[in-house]
Amino acid sequence: MGGVIVITMGDPAGIGPEIILKGYRRFGRNYVPVVVGDAGVLDFYRQLLKIDVPLKEIKDLSEAEGGFLNVLSLSRLGAGKDFSPGVSSEVCGKWVVEYIKKAVSLCMAGGAQAVVTAPISKASMHRAGYSYPGHTELLAELTGTKTYAMMLTGGGIRVVLVTIHVPLKEVPSLLTREGIEEKIELTVKEMKRLYGIDEPEIAVCGLNPHAGEDGAFGDEEQKIISPAIKKFEGRYKVSGPHPADTVFYWQKKGKYHAVIAMYHDQGLIPVKLAGFEEGVNVTLGLPIIRTSPDHGTAFDIAGKGVADPTSIVCAYNLASLFAENALGNKA
Amino acid sequence: MGGVIVITMGDPAGIGPEIILKGYRRFGRNYVPVVVGDAGVLDFYRQLLKIDVPLKEIKDLSEAEGGFLNVLSLSRLGAGKDFSPGVSSEVCGKWVVEYIKKAVSLCMAGGAQAVVTAPISKASMHRAGYSYPGHTELLAELTGTKTYAMMLTGGGIRVVLVTIHVPLKEVPSLLTREGIEEKIELTVKEMKRLYGIDEPEIAVCGLNPHAGEDGAFGDEEQKIISPAIKKFEGRYKVSGPHPADTVFYWQKKGKYHAVIAMYHDQGLIPVKLAGFEEGVNVTLGLPIIRTSPDHGTAFDIAGKGVADPTSIVCAYNLASLFAENALGNKA
Repeated sequence: MGGVIVITMGDPAGIGPEIILKGYRRFGRNYVPVVVGDAGVLDFYRQLLKIDVPLKEIKDLSEAEGGFLNVLSLSRLGAGKDFSPGVSSEVCGKWVVEYIKKAVSLCMAGGAQAVVTAPISKASMHRAGYSYPGHTELLAELTGTKTYAMMLTGGGIRVVLVTIHVPLKEVPSLLTREGIEEKIELTVKEMKRLYGIDEPEIAVCGLNPHAGEDGAFGDEEQKIISPAIKKFEGRYKVSGPHPADTVFYWQKKGKYHAVIAMYHDQGLIPVKLAGFEEGVNVTLGLPIIRTSPDHGTAFDIAGKGVADPTSIVCAYNLASLFAENALGNKA
Repeated sequence: MGGVIVITMGDPAGIGPEIILKGYRRFGRNYVPVVVGDAGVLDFYRQLLKIDVPLKEIKDLSEAEGGFLNVLSLSRLGAGKDFSPGVSSEVCGKWVVEYIKKAVSLCMAGGAQAVVTAPISKASMHRAGYSYPGHTELLAELTGTKTYAMMLTGGGIRVVLVTIHVPLKEVPSLLTREGIEEKIELTVKEMKRLYGIDEPEIAVCGLNPHAGEDGAFGDEEQKIISPAIKKFEGRYKVSGPHPADTVFYWQKKGKYHAVIAMYHDQGLIPVKLAGFEEGVNVTLGLPIIRTSPDHGTAFDIAGKGVADPTSIVCAYNLASLFAENALGNKA
């Protein structure tokens, strides 16, 4: 027990600082929270939005203290000068990457037990010359991870995606037996490491209506998905391909620990319907623990005081649970 | 007020007769229920499963009486001879079509105000020489309907499908501007006729993740879906293309009267997650009112007494509501 969870502040112009401040009092107390970001930016939003949070600026993790929202401050951005709420900018795009690099290095070195990432802006990062599609790819690069996956959880649903941000018409040709096997293997391993579930029940979705209905509506189930599932017969509790329109109902009822979906909307429709405010994004396969709220920078409402911190609170508390489980599983 | 709702009995070997019998006491009382089917089959299941329902065999709708589950008996099938619970057969496939034809003609002639269809078996119908993919196509043919659509409703979700039982990889090429315009037009019209909503708010889904994110993940939104929506600007309250992973959450919250989905699982995942037991299938565009439970014959549990009648009860009561609204809108 004990230790530190680092929170990257996200884009200074987005809702990241606001939801961290608002969420602070709902963060679990088993770990000490340390924001990696900018103490001035947090103080700006604290005053602007009148959020009563005890900030403590620190220079090193060893100074982090319970009862405070500690801030390891890397930048000194001036409001209206270096950033403005709701406005994408190069300087913000540059700094968010620095926050993430620092947070990851703290986790890799063992000083922090998990990282929670507040939202970043692809637009700002592009202005700063970065071309990462999102957090996940950057985190994979920083930790030297080849095999990883995105899991979304909320409202009783846990779903791992085989393909993510690609046009729907490309999905069928992107599915491979090896790719699906990799996601199954990773999901089983991570259900154990993060959730402490020894023999997880994993359901794999079909691609087509009614999972193809024995080939009547498509053959990817027979050619690709079923063979991938078969590989684990007798080793893991993996079943499918299941019709996607019913499998999430059964998962919510508790029949499966996780569902593997073939494409973005197949997995995200049920997560967001069941747990819109409490959605958490988890990266599977990293050597560190990483969660994040399941929403973006929301530039349109930045600085207005209306952002809902529920998702980052869920992300923080899930990271805390994972950290304890991972520690317990190692011991 | 008053009148008749006909219920086609569905496949004698499926769960249709059982759910009609079990559902009877939960049917609303504004209309008199008349099963079009086989009185002997209903009596067989009534005795087998000990379901206490007052059956009344009638020869003509004029004999139908409140306080009874009336049966307009077309066939005389013998249990174990002509049908066996759970077994697909030619004779059942032949008779289900007769039940449907009769029920439709009663609705078309005005003697019945709506039809609720219990599940049929494609396998049995194929044995009998029919090649209809399902109820919808048969009903369209019998009523001379060219433009129709399938709507699913349950758990606060109402969704109309643009494509249905086709392989996922064919969906993008099956979407056309005209096809989507047709579904929008139909949905608006039917929200008014069936639900009595004068200016329905309709949301149209995108096809790709995040509705394509301005073309980053696919261009069907820009090329096909947006132009279709634009056609109705100023005339109807139609918006989109919306990211499919959030639009159903907002619909459930009451923001839209109906959502138009591009493909089967996009629409059925949210309906079944939100309203698994209470899902109702509605055919839009017919000159008659037709609803049905959102499940199949369930041969695997036929005759065992475990079938849940909730879906057919919801289908019956929704048909009753539609009949009153349609009458009111005509007056």
